[in-house]
Amino acid sequence: MMAKQVQQDQLYIGIDGGGTKCRATIYSLEHGVLGTGLGGPANPLHGLERTLESIMVSTQLALQDAGLHVEQVHSLNAGLGLAGVNLPALYDKIMQWDHPFQQMFLTTDLHTACIGAHEGEDGAVIITGTGSCGFSLVNGKTVNFGGHGFAQGDMGSGAWMGLEAVKVALLDLDGLGQPTLLSNLLLQHFNTENAMGIAEQMAGQPSSGYAKLARFVFSAAEQGDALALAIVKQGAEYISRLAQRLLDSGPPRLSMIGGLAEPLSKWLAPEIAEKVELPKQPPEMGAIYFAINSVEQQLNKVK
Amino acid sequence: MMAKQVQQDQLYIGIDGGGTKCRATIYSLEHGVLGTGLGGPANPLHGLERTLESIMVSTQLALQDAGLHVEQVHSLNAGLGLAGVNLPALYDKIMQWDHPFQQMFLTTDLHTACIGAHEGEDGAVIITGTGSCGFSLVNGKTVNFGGHGFAQGDMGSGAWMGLEAVKVALLDLDGLGQPTLLSNLLLQHFNTENAMGIAEQMAGQPSSGYAKLARFVFSAAEQGDALALAIVKQGAEYISRLAQRLLDSGPPRLSMIGGLAEPLSKWLAPEIAEKVELPKQPPEMGAIYFAINSVEQQLNKVK
Repeated sequence: MMAKQVQQDQLYIGIDGGGTKCRATIYSLEHGVLGTGLGGPANPLHGLERTLESIMVSTQLALQDAGLHVEQVHSLNAGLGLAGVNLPALYDKIMQWDHPFQQMFLTTDLHTACIGAHEGEDGAVIITGTGSCGFSLVNGKTVNFGGHGFAQGDMGSGAWMGLEAVKVALLDLDGLGQPTLLSNLLLQHFNTENAMGIAEQMAGQPSSGYAKLARFVFSAAEQGDALALAIVKQGAEYISRLAQRLLDSGPPRLSMIGGLAEPLSKWLAPEIAEKVELPKQPPEMGAIYFAINSVEQQLNKVK
Repeated sequence: MMAKQVQQDQLYIGIDGGGTKCRATIYSLEHGVLGTGLGGPANPLHGLERTLESIMVSTQLALQDAGLHVEQVHSLNAGLGLAGVNLPALYDKIMQWDHPFQQMFLTTDLHTACIGAHEGEDGAVIITGTGSCGFSLVNGKTVNFGGHGFAQGDMGSGAWMGLEAVKVALLDLDGLGQPTLLSNLLLQHFNTENAMGIAEQMAGQPSSGYAKLARFVFSAAEQGDALALAIVKQGAEYISRLAQRLLDSGPPRLSMIGGLAEPLSKWLAPEIAEKVELPKQPPEMGAIYFAINSVEQQLNKVK
């Protein structure tokens, strides 16, 4: 087992890029997690420069946290999970980056989230945060559903819920829809008195701006508001269908991650809810497993 | 009638700004329409510079068409109907423009559309093109509904229909929705083989990009597709409710204008459809009536 010996001298860094933050964790096979760092937004679909900057900030903070010298970045084997790199053009752009690591292994944020959730074993994940999507990895085969972006896809996500809330509130306030508690909740939130005041403040907002409103939908649904209940149920039904499609691929485990995983869980179809298990490790650990596996594969090839 | 005599020496220009083009018409009280001109996009919400440029292009072309000298722009009394100038900040910005006209009178595109549709008399209009909204002017009082913008408002509009079409097609192609003819229509249109190919091409598209897809919804609905029918009916029901709210304000006439007015008309509630009358004049004529009225009011004040 030559490979194992070589790896034991190696340091790894796992990086999970997201729309609002970037998490990095430094790991050694011998001593486990050595340090972590947090950077800004790192979704290359929203800006490549910013993404690379956030990766470097989180990396430097993780080195510091681990008590390592800044120059030791050159000895790290990096695993990166980033949105959008399923597109070959974006994958190539990031691989062309003059990065400071010893080696860099790149895959999608879905892939690293899945590897992390199941500690490197096969499994499936549903991500429901600002957006929503599903991914499974079984016997080397991956499938994914959803994740088509705001406003045309990502049902059951925070952004989708927020948009649906604004829609029914505006209809209600115009006297063109059914009454809903959401109208008053949104008027208060936006500190305005009419539909136009809400519409103006939401105009041109990105998906994250709508996702912030999802909590009002859960809150109104808890109070029995019919339209809020309909939104929550429609979202949960979609996520249940997404889960069933993933289960059809035969994953040993299924996890849900993201800000809406917990509030949505009790609205899922019972046969789905009982199959959802907690993720074992976070996505940045998945990125570390991905880097370790990639190095091992290289060594096996060399042998 | 001093006022009338003064006006007879006057030339007017009516300008209707829109998201895709700007129309200008030059008019004299004695000889009627003298010439017309067509410019580019003139929606100040999407860019003030571009709007003013389009206004000038359409004005110069109208002067040319009327056989007038370019310098005669200084003798024109201009009526402008533009989107978004219900917002005081935008109204003020445009009024501060160092315009070349003798005088400039500014109001919303809804107002001039309504004045035009009813030849200066009271009435109501529904606009269903890329967006949708309703406006009425009765005894000096105006009301308006909808028009809250894509993707949160503007139900029954072309952009709303296009977005709903993309949503159901993506769900169908992911195996997470009901089958619909729209899937194949959109796959063909985007020359792609899967959901991601549609999602990528629509990502970040403005409302006009979605509005271009509305024709597929009507086409699939004509062929009896259940999901397309549901979209068309939901849109038409909303427009019917909007019409009823406008009729509640007591307008003598109701007109529908915009690219979807004709295809939607047969789906409206019968009691609404029978009340919809053709617009008598286009919005740019409404802008001329608005300018004439504004000049008359000035002269009455002077007297």
